[in-house]
Formats: sequence, C-alpha cells, structure tokens
Amino acid sequence: MKKVLLLNGPNLALLGTREPEIYGRTTLADIVETVKAAAKTKGIEVDAFQSDVEGELVAAIGRSRGAYDAIIINPAAYTHTSVAIHDAIKASGVPTVEVHLSNVYAREGYRHGSLTAGVCVGQICGFGPAGYLLALEALSRDR
Amino acid sequence: MKKVLLLNGPNLALLGTREPEIYGRTTLADIVETVKAAAKTKGIEVDAFQSDVEGELVAAIGRSRGAYDAIIINPAAYTHTSVAIHDAIKASGVPTVEVHLSNVYAREGYRHGSLTAGVCVGQICGFGPAGYLLALEALSRDR
Amino acid sequence: MKKVLLLNGPNLALLGTREPEIYGRTTLADIVETVKAAAKTKGIEVDAFQSDVEGELVAAIGRSRGAYDAIIINPAAYTHTSVAIHDAIKASGVPTVEVHLSNVYAREGYRHGSLTAGVCVGQICGFGPAGYLLALEALSRDR
Amino acid sequence: MKKVLLLNGPNLALLGTREPEIYGRTTLADIVETVKAAAKTKGIEVDAFQSDVEGELVAAIGRSRGAYDAIIINPAAYTHTSVAIHDAIKASGVPTVEVHLSNVYAREGYRHGSLTAGVCVGQICGFGPAGYLLALEALSRDR
Amino acid sequence: MKKVLLLNGPNLALLGTREPEIYGRTTLADIVETVKAAAKTKGIEVDAFQSDVEGELVAAIGRSRGAYDAIIINPAAYTHTSVAIHDAIKASGVPTVEVHLSNVYAREGYRHGSLTAGVCVGQICGFGPAGYLLALEALSRDR
Amino acid sequence: MKKVLLLNGPNLALLGTREPEIYGRTTLADIVETVKAAAKTKGIEVDAFQSDVEGELVAAIGRSRGAYDAIIINPAAYTHTSVAIHDAIKASGVPTVEVHLSNVYAREGYRHGSLTAGVCVGQICGFGPAGYLLALEALSRDR
Amino acid sequence: MKKVLLLNGPNLALLGTREPEIYGRTTLADIVETVKAAAKTKGIEVDAFQSDVEGELVAAIGRSRGAYDAIIINPAAYTHTSVAIHDAIKASGVPTVEVHLSNVYAREGYRHGSLTAGVCVGQICGFGPAGYLLALEALSRDR
Amino acid sequence: MKKVLLLNGPNLALLGTREPEIYGRTTLADIVETVKAAAKTKGIEVDAFQSDVEGELVAAIGRSRGAYDAIIINPAAYTHTSVAIHDAIKASGVPTVEVHLSNVYAREGYRHGSLTAGVCVGQICGFGPAGYLLALEALSRDR
Amino acid sequence: MKKVLLLNGPNLALLGTREPEIYGRTTLADIVETVKAAAKTKGIEVDAFQSDVEGELVAAIGRSRGAYDAIIINPAAYTHTSVAIHDAIKASGVPTVEVHLSNVYAREGYRHGSLTAGVCVGQICGFGPAGYLLALEALSRDR
Amino acid sequence: MKKVLLLNGPNLALLGTREPEIYGRTTLADIVETVKAAAKTKGIEVDAFQSDVEGELVAAIGRSRGAYDAIIINPAAYTHTSVAIHDAIKASGVPTVEVHLSNVYAREGYRHGSLTAGVCVGQICGFGPAGYLLALEALSRDR
Amino acid sequence: MKKVLLLNGPNLALLGTREPEIYGRTTLADIVETVKAAAKTKGIEVDAFQSDVEGELVAAIGRSRGAYDAIIINPAAYTHTSVAIHDAIKASGVPTVEVHLSNVYAREGYRHGSLTAGVCVGQICGFGPAGYLLALEALSRDR
Amino acid sequence: MKKVLLLNGPNLALLGTREPEIYGRTTLADIVETVKAAAKTKGIEVDAFQSDVEGELVAAIGRSRGAYDAIIINPAAYTHTSVAIHDAIKASGVPTVEVHLSNVYAREGYRHGSLTAGVCVGQICGFGPAGYLLALEALSRDR
Repeated sequence: MKKVLLLNGPNLALLGTREPEIYGRTTLADIVETVKAAAKTKGIEVDAFQSDVEGELVAAIGRSRGAYDAIIINPAAYTHTSVAIHDAIKASGVPTVEVHLSNVYAREGYRHGSLTAGVCVGQICGFGPAGYLLALEALSRDR
Repeated sequence: MKKVLLLNGPNLALLGTREPEIYGRTTLADIVETVKAAAKTKGIEVDAFQSDVEGELVAAIGRSRGAYDAIIINPAAYTHTSVAIHDAIKASGVPTVEVHLSNVYAREGYRHGSLTAGVCVGQICGFGPAGYLLALEALSRDR
Repeated sequence: MKKVLLLNGPNLALLGTREPEIYGRTTLADIVETVKAAAKTKGIEVDAFQSDVEGELVAAIGRSRGAYDAIIINPAAYTHTSVAIHDAIKASGVPTVEVHLSNVYAREGYRHGSLTAGVCVGQICGFGPAGYLLALEALSRDR
Repeated sequence: MKKVLLLNGPNLALLGTREPEIYGRTTLADIVETVKAAAKTKGIEVDAFQSDVEGELVAAIGRSRGAYDAIIINPAAYTHTSVAIHDAIKASGVPTVEVHLSNVYAREGYRHGSLTAGVCVGQICGFGPAGYLLALEALSRDR
Repeated sequence: MKKVLLLNGPNLALLGTREPEIYGRTTLADIVETVKAAAKTKGIEVDAFQSDVEGELVAAIGRSRGAYDAIIINPAAYTHTSVAIHDAIKASGVPTVEVHLSNVYAREGYRHGSLTAGVCVGQICGFGPAGYLLALEALSRDR
Repeated sequence: MKKVLLLNGPNLALLGTREPEIYGRTTLADIVETVKAAAKTKGIEVDAFQSDVEGELVAAIGRSRGAYDAIIINPAAYTHTSVAIHDAIKASGVPTVEVHLSNVYAREGYRHGSLTAGVCVGQICGFGPAGYLLALEALSRDR
Repeated sequence: MKKVLLLNGPNLALLGTREPEIYGRTTLADIVETVKAAAKTKGIEVDAFQSDVEGELVAAIGRSRGAYDAIIINPAAYTHTSVAIHDAIKASGVPTVEVHLSNVYAREGYRHGSLTAGVCVGQICGFGPAGYLLALEALSRDR
Repeated sequence: MKKVLLLNGPNLALLGTREPEIYGRTTLADIVETVKAAAKTKGIEVDAFQSDVEGELVAAIGRSRGAYDAIIINPAAYTHTSVAIHDAIKASGVPTVEVHLSNVYAREGYRHGSLTAGVCVGQICGFGPAGYLLALEALSRDR
Repeated sequence: MKKVLLLNGPNLALLGTREPEIYGRTTLADIVETVKAAAKTKGIEVDAFQSDVEGELVAAIGRSRGAYDAIIINPAAYTHTSVAIHDAIKASGVPTVEVHLSNVYAREGYRHGSLTAGVCVGQICGFGPAGYLLALEALSRDR
Repeated sequence: MKKVLLLNGPNLALLGTREPEIYGRTTLADIVETVKAAAKTKGIEVDAFQSDVEGELVAAIGRSRGAYDAIIINPAAYTHTSVAIHDAIKASGVPTVEVHLSNVYAREGYRHGSLTAGVCVGQICGFGPAGYLLALEALSRDR
Repeated sequence: MKKVLLLNGPNLALLGTREPEIYGRTTLADIVETVKAAAKTKGIEVDAFQSDVEGELVAAIGRSRGAYDAIIINPAAYTHTSVAIHDAIKASGVPTVEVHLSNVYAREGYRHGSLTAGVCVGQICGFGPAGYLLALEALSRDR
Repeated sequence: MKKVLLLNGPNLALLGTREPEIYGRTTLADIVETVKAAAKTKGIEVDAFQSDVEGELVAAIGRSRGAYDAIIINPAAYTHTSVAIHDAIKASGVPTVEVHLSNVYAREGYRHGSLTAGVCVGQICGFGPAGYLLALEALSRDR
C-alpha cells in the first residue's frame, strides 16, 4: 500500500472547538499531521481533504480510483443521509474504512442509521482521533 | 445583540416567481431589505446569505461562531433532510431561530419531518415574509 | 381587527409554579395582563379563557365564530391528542395562531405530534410568554 | 419544443467505468452526443450539465424557467434523498422526465424510495442509455 | 323497544353552520325533531343529549343501563381518540349504533381510526342526517 | 331511481350454511328475494349477481354505467384486497353503497382494512341481511 | 405521610356492575371505605375523588401540590390517551402510584400503551381492589 | 423480434370513458390499433388481450413462453396486489415492459406499491397511450 | 377418510418448465398421478383441480363441504394475497393441509406473509413434490 | 398458600454493587432473607433461586408445578427477550407475580417491551426491594 | 442416511403435562421411542437430546457436523428469539428439518416470527407428535 | 492496563471450520494465542473464555468488575438479542470494546440490530481476527 486518501465530512473543520466534551480539543490539522507521521513510518503517503459539501466528497471519491490504494473516511452527518457517497464508494472500488470519533451506537443521533458503512471494508468508532490511526493500521496489515 | 446572520436555503432565490399562490410575490431581495431596515431601528446589523448548496449553509453556520449574536434561518427543503445543518447549528452555539414562510403543518410535504428545529431556540411558521421580522423581534427581546 | 380570544389549555393555570426551569416564573395572570396591555395599544380587545377540560375549549372555539376576529391558542397537552379541537378550529373559520412556550421540537414529549397546528394560520414556539405577543403582532399585521 | 436541458446527477461522470455489468461501458459524453444528435434531427437543441453537488442541480433547474421547454433528468442517488430537487422541479414549472439507466424496482437500493418522480411528467427506467432517447421521444410527441 | 338515547359529540351543536358543503344546512335541533317524530310512529320515545365534553358522554352512557333499550351515537371527533367512550359502551351493555354524517372512509381525517365502532352493534356512515333514521330503523327491526 | 344492481362477492353463495353463529341461516336467495320485494314497493327493479371471481365483479361494475342508477355491493373478502374493485366503482360513476353482514370493526379479520369503502357513498355494517334493505332505503331517499 | 389523594377515572363509578367477570362485584364506595380504614390504622387521611372528565382529574392533580403527600390514581381509559394527566402528575411533583384492577398486560385493550405510568413512582396491576391497599402500603413504607 | 403480446388488465376495457381528465378519450381499441400499426412498420406482429380477471392474465403470460419474444403489460390495479402476475412474468422468462398511462408516482393510489415492476425489463409511466409505443420502441432496439 | 381434494393454484400448471433449479422438472400431471397412486394404496380417492383464478379456487373449496373428507392445497402466490381463500377454507370446515414445494422461509418472496395457513390443520414446506405425499400421509393417520 | 418460589434473573446476583443510584445498596441475599422472614410470619416457606441462564429459569419454573403454590419472579433482562420463560409460566399453571425494582415505564430500556407479564397474575414495579414483599402480600391475600 | 440427531428445545421436557388440550398427552420419552423405532425400520440410528438452555442446543448443533447426516429440531420458543441457533444450523451444514407440534400460524404467539426456519431444508407444523415421523420420512426419501 | 478479559460468544468455538469464505480458516485457539502474544509485548495479561450460553457470558462479565481493566468481546449472535449482556456490561463498569470479524453492516443478518454496542467504549468490525488486535491497541493507548 502506497497512497491513502483521508476524507473528512461536514463540520469536522470545526474539530477542537465543537462540543469538546464529546469530541475533545484536538483539531483536524492535528489529526492529519498525526496520521501522516504514522503513515510515513510505514512508507505510506497520505493526502487529506475536508469538505462540508456532499458532492465534493462524492467527486473526491470518484477521482480516487487508480490514484489511491485505500480511503479512510469520516462522513460525519452524511453517514446518515448520503446515498450518493454510498454509490461513490461502491463505484470507486477503492478499499475504504469508515471512522467515527464517538461511539455512534451510544448517541441518540444515530437513529438516522448508516447508509455508507455497508460498502466499506469495516468501521471503527468510539476511540476519538485514535480511530484514524487504527484504520491506517487495519489497512496496512496483510489481510 | 449587535449582529445577526440571515440564512436562506435552496430554491429561495426564486422567491416571488415560484408558486406565488403559496409564497406570494415578494422577492428574497425585498425580504432582506425589509429585515435590514427593521434591524437598523434596533441598532442591529444584518448580513444575508442564500445558497442552494447544503454544505455552503453548513460552512456559513460554522463561521458564525464569534462573528454573530444570532442566526435567522429558513432551511427550506434541507429542514427535512439535513443532519449536517442540524450538527452545524448545535456545534456553533449561536442562538438560532427557524422560519418558514408557509404553515408547514398544513402542507403534505412536511411529512418528511424536521431535522433542524430541535436545535434552534424556536420556530415561527405560517406568516409569510413577516415571519423573519417576528424572528428578529423575538431575538431582540430580553429573554 | 377588533377582538381576539386568548385560549389556554390544561395545566396552564399552574404556570409559574410548574417546572419553572422550563417554563419560567411568569403566571398565566401576568401573561393575560401583558397581552391585554399590548393589544390595547393597537386598539384590540382581548378576552381570555383557560380550561383543563378539552370540551370546554371546543365549546369556546365554537362560540367564537362572529364574536372574535382571531384566536390565539396554547392547547398544551391537547395539541397532541385532540381531534375535537382540530375540528372546532376548522369549523369556526376564525384565523387562529398556535403558541407554545417551549420549543416543542426539542422536547421528548413532542413525539406525540401535533393534531391542531395544521388548521391554524401558523405556529410560534420556543419564546416563552413572548410568544403570545408575537402571535398578536403577527395577527395585527396586514397580510 | 425548441430547447431541452439534460441533467445528470452524482457519480454519473464515472459512467462507463463504474460497475459496467450493471450500467454498461457507454460514457456520459457518448450519451450526451447521442442525445444531441437525435434531438438535432427533430430540430431541438440540447444543453447538458452534470454535477455531483445537489445544490448545483437545484440551481440549474431554477435557471431553466423560461430558458428551456423541457428537462430530462437522471438524479441518480439524489432521487432517494433530495426534497430540494423535488421543490426545484415543482417550482420551475418546466415539464421534466426522470430517467434511470437500470430498473430501479429490481435493485435493493431502491428501498430508499423516490422523492422526485411525483413532480415529473413521467419516469422511464431499465433501458440503459436508450432511456434518454425514449424520454426525448416522449417529450417531442404531441400529447 | 321503548326508549332510545340519542347522543351527539363535540362540535355537533354547530351543525348547519359548520362546513355546510360537507355536512349540509340541517341543524342538530332539526335532526333531533325528525328522529323523535319518526320514533313516535314506532311507539319509541327518544331522549337527546349533546356534549363537547368526552367525560359527559361517558357519564351519559354509564347512566343509560336499565334506562334505555338502545343508544344511537355520533361520537364525532371522539370516535378517533376516546378509549373511555369505548369502555363506557362496552360496560353499559346497551345495544348501540354508531352514526357518521359523512363517509368517514373518504376523508383524510379518518386515518386516526375508530376506537368505538368495535363495541357497537354496527355502523352507518355517509348518508347525512338520514343516517340517524336508518339507525333507528335498524334498531327497531326484529333481529 | 329505477334500477339497482345488487352485487355479492366471494363465499356469499354459501350464506346460510357458513358459520351460522356469525352470519345466520338466511341464504343469499332469501336475501335477493327480500330486497327485490322491498324494491318493488318503491317502484325499483333489482338485478342480482354473485361471483367468487374478483374480475367478474369488476366487469359487472364496468357494465353498470348507464344501465343502473345505483349499486349495493357486499365485496366480502375483496373489501380488503381489491384495488381493482375500488378502481371500477370510481370509474363507473354509479352511486354505490357498501354493505357488510357483520360488524367488521368487531372482527379480527378486518385488520386488513378496507380498499373499497372510500369510493362508495357510504357503508352499513353489523345488521345482518337487514343491511341490504337499509342500503336500499338510504339510496331511495332524497338526499 | 399524612394525607393521600385517591383518584379514580372514567367508568369506575360503575364498578361492581360493569363486566363483573373481569372486575368483580366490589363497588367504588366499598373500595374507598376499605382504603380509608386501612389508612386510618397508619394515621393517614384519605380524600377520594372520581370523575369521568379528563380535565377534572387534571385539575384535581393540579390542586394536590402542597395539599397531599401522595396520590393513588387509577386513570382507567385515560391511561392510554391522556398527555394532560401525564403533564399534571409531572408538574405537581406529588409522588403518585398508578393502580389497575386487572393485569393490563393480559388484555387486548392495553395495546394503546400507557402515557401516565412513566411519571409515577411505580405501577401495581392485576390484584383487583387489593391493588389500592398495596399502593397505600408501598407509599407508607420508608423508601 | 417477431411477435409481441400486448396485455391489459382490469378496468382498461373502459378506457376513453373512465375519468377522461386523467386518462384521455382514447379507447383501448384505438391503442391496440396504433400499436399494431407501429409494430408492422418494424416487421413485428402484435397480439392483444385484455382481462379483468387476474388469473386469466396469469394464464396468458404462462402461455407466452416460446410463443412471443416480448410482452408489453399494463397490469392496472393488479400492479399493486398480484404476486401471481409477478410469479408468472418471472417464470415465463419472456422480456416484459410495464406501462402505466398516468404518472403513478403522482397519484395517491400508488401508495399500494408495485409487485410486478421488479421482474420486468423496465417501466414507463406518465405518457398516456404513447407509453405503449415507447415500450415497443424500447423492446425493438438493440440492447 | 375416503375422498381428498387436491388443489393447486396459479402458475403451477407450468411446473417442470418454470425455474427448474428451484422447483425441479416434475410436472403437475406427474404429481397428481403419484398422489393418486399413493392414495389408492390407502383406499383413498383423489380428485385434482388446478386454476390460475382465485375465485375458481374459492368456488372449489366452497363445493368441497360434504363432498370431500380433506383438502390438500398449494395456493402458490395466493397464499400471500387471498383473504377470500382464507374465508373459504374457514367456512368449508373441511380439514385442509397447506403444501409448498420450496422452503418459503428461505425465499425473499415470502415477506408477503401467509393469509391462508392459519385456517389449515398444518403446513408442510421445502420437500418438493414429496410434500404432497407427506400431507396425504399426515391426513390419513389417526390423530 | 404454603410454599413460594422466589426467582431472580440475570445480573441480579450483582445487586447492591450495580448502578446503586438506580437499584440501591441492598444485596440479593438481603432481599431473600427479608422475604423469607416476612413469609415465615404468614406461615409460608420460601425457596430462592437466581440464575443468569435463561434455560435454568425455564427449568426451575417447569419443576415448580405441584411443588409450589406461587412464584414471585424478577426476570430482569429476560422480561424483554424470553418467549421461553413466557411459555414456562403459562405451562406451569402456577400463579406468578412479576416484580421489577425500578419503574420500568420511566426507563429508556423498557422500549424492548414485556414478553412475560401477560401470563402473570399481575406486575409490581418501582418500589425497590419492597416490591417483593408487596408481591408476597398480594399473593397471600384471599382473592 | 445413517444417523439423525433429534433435538428438542425449552419446555418440551414437560410434554404430556403442559396444556394438553393443545399438545396432547404424549410425553417426550414416548416421542423419542416412537421416532427411534420408526428409524430402525429404515436402518437409521437416532440420538435424542433435550435442553431448556439455548447455548446447549447451539453446542449440540455445532458438534453434529460430521457426526450426523441430518437433524430434526423442534426449537420451541427459541424459534422466535434465537439468532444463535440460526447461525449454528447454517454453520453446521447438516440438513435440518424444523418441526412444530401445533400449527404455529394459528396461534397468537407466532407473531414473534421464525428466525430458524430459513436455514432449514423445510418445516412441518400442525400434526402433533406425528410431525417428527413425517420429518424422518421426508429426510429418508431420495430428493 | 494490566489485565484484559477476552470473551467470545456462540458458535465461535467453530471458527476456522464454519463458512470459511466469510470468516477465514483461523481457529479461535489461534486468535487467543495471537492476542496473548501481542498483549505480552505491552505487559498485559489476557484471560480468554468462550461460551455458547448467554448466561455464562453474563456471569463472566459480572465477575470481571475489579478483576480486569478491560474487556474485549465478540458477542456474535447475542449482539442482536441479548439485553442481559447489555445490562451486564453496563453494570460491570469495565471498559469494553466490541469486535466483529465481518463487516456487520454489509450482511443481511444485521437487520436484527445491536443491543450491546451502545454500552461499549467503541466497536470495530470488518477486519477479521485482526480486529481483536486493533481492540487491544485501542484499549492500551492513552485516551
């Protein structure tokens, strides 16, 4: 595995300032830096992209085919509403891991269900920013 | 209260031309001008923004923290589908009032329910463009 | 507009003593007095009536036809269960605005839904006692 | 009928590379070219627009009023989630035909239902790229 | 059969003034008079009672045991919400016929369902005021 | 009113032998004879038709337009499953009254709901064979 | 504990005559007398009130604050339909025990669910009139 | 493609007389003639069959295997209720296109859903009688 | 037990040609012959009837009372949609066993549920044509 | 009544250590001792059994027939999931009272519903350990 | 086929004593003996195991792979609640027939649905103890 | 963190033999050994326990309080049905991570939902046996 695309969805640019009692004080820039550093020790290059716009995430996934070996995505609110991201992941054929900072099962908001997890390799939730590193670890193993 | 952000969602740029028997002939520019004038008499400055793109509304709400004392939002169709706007309002911590031009309870389309009203201060619906002025009035009172 | 009927439903006689952290300490008498004063400045006369009995509210609405130009109603718990009040408002033909003190979307109890809002002109919720004044304001505008 | 707007939604830019066993190997450019050629023989001009962003499709439909005689739209994933596109088609007043490449009734994903078909003239599904030509044929007939 | 109790529920005191395009211009007094006259020709005495209060209808049914041979009831809106009237009819043991002026199956409001018809002898709906006479006819036959 | 079509659906040919504790011992021939006799006294001619086949009932209703002034129908089990009979009654434009021998609200089987009553003038249930006579009475009145 | 309010809802005035195979032959007066006697031995005074009218029960609960140390209530049919009684118990702040004569879980009618039990201290059902004594016993214990 | 079976379901024999504001004034005979003429220009022979009886449509589909190259079917009301037609189409293995005259998505009656479209090649709705010609066109193309 | 009626529903006349990977290559004639032979060894006479028409199956069951000691029925698709066959079996009073060739629990189509099994003695599914012989065996035992 | 079986289900062995703010600090041993002492004063012998294994509770109930005059059971989590315990209580024929320490109506977890209460004599909830004594009291009364 | 495992679930050890009007007076020992005798005549050896504990049934199925040619199982109450038994049957790969003594479709309790039948070869219900013999018969046939 | 309890639920003892195309050929013994080895390098001791019996898993979790610093659990089928394991994890207060070998979102069986994940720290699914190591990694980080 050489290249990984790290995608973050709506409101995640606010990370570290938004509801810190749930999400902590780490910013998205901190997370990207940490993931890139950890990837470097495994010889993996990471490109990161955040957008509040569903269609821009769809387009980024669409362009990933052939350009990346894997995707790590935190679709945030679009997890619950985006058939388009579901279709994009399925169509791209790029192995994708879904990460959530909090334990989505323990929060009321999750009643909206997940439209995206079913087309991913797997899902990791509840471990805060460490979840991205676990996803990287999971993808870099021989499976 | 010094500054208010006035947000309007999808299709509202067409106001005054679209289904006038339901929404009347007042344009969005008319409404913005009226709200700004009413606000001025209370010493409040109003910035207005309209977008058809869910993620641009999310981003505008995200930037409002610290910049505005309150938000008046008519999320239009995204009322029924946007968990992302719900998350943005909740994360921003800026007091927000939801306005709808028509009585959403009296229209079939409202069966989709509201995903955004629960994180607002309150909701005003059914009074046409006057609803924005009532929201301004409600926000400018001592509560 | 000359005369307005101000109707309040079950448990609202307790206002000011009941769950003050949600509803505040203003009593129903305070509210009625404030609404009457505000109306007087607009040349509007207000009659107020409170009942815990669904059928007495139905009867009051039934008698309003020809006697009042508008109704402001807070049906409280009957919002969620009274088809009879729905029928009464619809049959009376008197323009009616529904007011709730708290943001009903933000409270668990609202899952029972609203049976009455669909036959009103509009609904205002979440602004405490000020909601009644906003309703008066909304009704007294040219629409 | 002089001018038709051909709209394609999310992931359709990938057509011809994505799940070809379901959607075939024809690209979106091929389809646009074929539809334009067929339209030309009927004296109809076709403008084509694709976007992964829901709000850009909403805006395109909003601008179509007065500029186009009809719309042919494949909303793809937004068929299932976009109240905003539903509202845009309804508000535009431009006769619209919904096209799907595959038989949406035969696919599991269709359980999400259709939010847009009800405000269209009709729907055509299951005939691959030929569906766009059938839509053009249907629109150009005297009805 | 000697004595019949004719019960009418909420809003029916307004009959003849309320939505005449659905319910006609006959008043409740007209109906009571007509039913009494028709009953007299069969040697049956009719007492009539109308109330907007659910509990007063419950009490009237409770008192009917031993005092009346049958009940004709139009529970109006309480058809859809009153378990208490259901329990009262069941407990009284007095044969009861439910009458509705309009065809409840043809109206949107009926989605609330019927809580009372299942404990009645039968139901007659859709024939306007004549429905009460048909109920009297049905009850006075040998069955 | 000159001519009435009396339609009976599946299993009703067995009337008088089938579950007599619910439906009594009167046969369908008895009912038809009684209805014809009662109609004759009002100068009305009655044609009767029974079929176990849904499509034959559909066809009979289809042929009734112009030939009959009214239909009395007991669709039996097809009440709960036949969109086709619903469509036929609606298309025929012939005033139709639905009759059920038993109180369908009191029987478990009615949970299947009614697909046909909404396009009828009204419904009469729970009065056994007398229900047909009440339907005739209802149709022959001036309304 | 000095004073207890014993509330009984709709149809319970008929106790002892209504469906005795389910509810037995004890009258409401018998029950009240027995509860008062048992309370007296514990130095507790009991006031009893029965009403068929939902709003009168709401009002009685509203007046209980400060006047009674506890409420024992059998809301009967209003258990299933009264959000107003739910609100009244919650607002009063008086510890309340809900009693049902029969085992509500074993009866079909209970499918309507309970709107009131969630704001009570607890619920006792299935033990006939003895349930009121068990409730008194439960309330008079140190907890 | 040499031979096509044109099947029409219940109530369609009434076409041209039934609710013309929805379905127009073209009769079924007109449609059959038009389809046959259009087919002839493509060297295709068309046999047409209409029945109000679900089982006769099932039988016709059952006999089509080996006798026809394709089926065009408008199952009308049976679209919503017939598992048997679903099974027949699936078992026959003959490519089938489902046609509806009106836009089924825009009509209330379609809430019953479609049991048959999932086993067809595709569906065309909303184009009136022209839908049959579009189906013929779709089937005669190289796919 | 002397006489058994063997009933088969829609599409079963195609048995042996239809989806043989699910239903095998045995024809309905083969099955009937095998059942008759097996019955003969037990001194039982078997009459067989197949129809695609729901109402003809209803009529056959209606005629079975007094003529047959038991019924073996494979209602095929009508299992899921026919309240009329349910009513017919219940009314006939003839002990009936329901047979399905495939394991209906393992197939998607069974989500439509069974309307007929509840009024049968029992159900046997999943054993192909042998299911009919097991049903005969079950019926001929002393129970 | 001579012998009572006191059954406690999963996790109740932890009582007194588990979530004491909900369940208090009394251990199961304390409860058993208290119930035995109270029973002794009534001349009743109590055997107590706790198991985390559903099947062991089923077996204990199965063995109780003839050995015990009544059962007091707190099925804990199995209340919501065990059809087997439901069947065991029903089959045993031993009068059983269901006890819950907390008011199950007031807790979110109760949405799972109760599978066992319907086959018990009654249910007591919300009174902590005292609930077991109330159950004993209820069972030892003449009913 | 040489060896068959006969599994019986919760409460079946009580067979013959439990609700004999539904299940008869045959004990489980009687059934096992009868099945073993019938199997012997076919040269098949039968091992029988009953447990009230879900996990012990799971373990027994787990050990059956390679040890038995087929399983006959009556999962009793676990039919409705055990995903674990479903998984065990699916994982074992041993052909399994599900047997129920009573017609589960005719009993209220079956509303809980079946979680296990879908992974079995087939299901036989409604024939009492004879069902096990029919299952043996079905498994021993050439299929 | 010193000690971790590794719990595996029903059917997992068969790992490596059961549906290897989904779960692979690694046995449970292999997994336990690998987890113990990985833990040893972090100075963590691991105890492993597998049971097919829900109540034994409940008991193991109950005993873990004070004895273990964390639990890694794969509840397998009990994920979907066990309120008792949910209660045990919640009551124990021991941080717990839920692991699934396959991506539960991608499998039909997951429609049963998860009853246990909401009381865990987080969930990891889709990475096969590596999921247990990721869970260990997640638990051993500073959070």
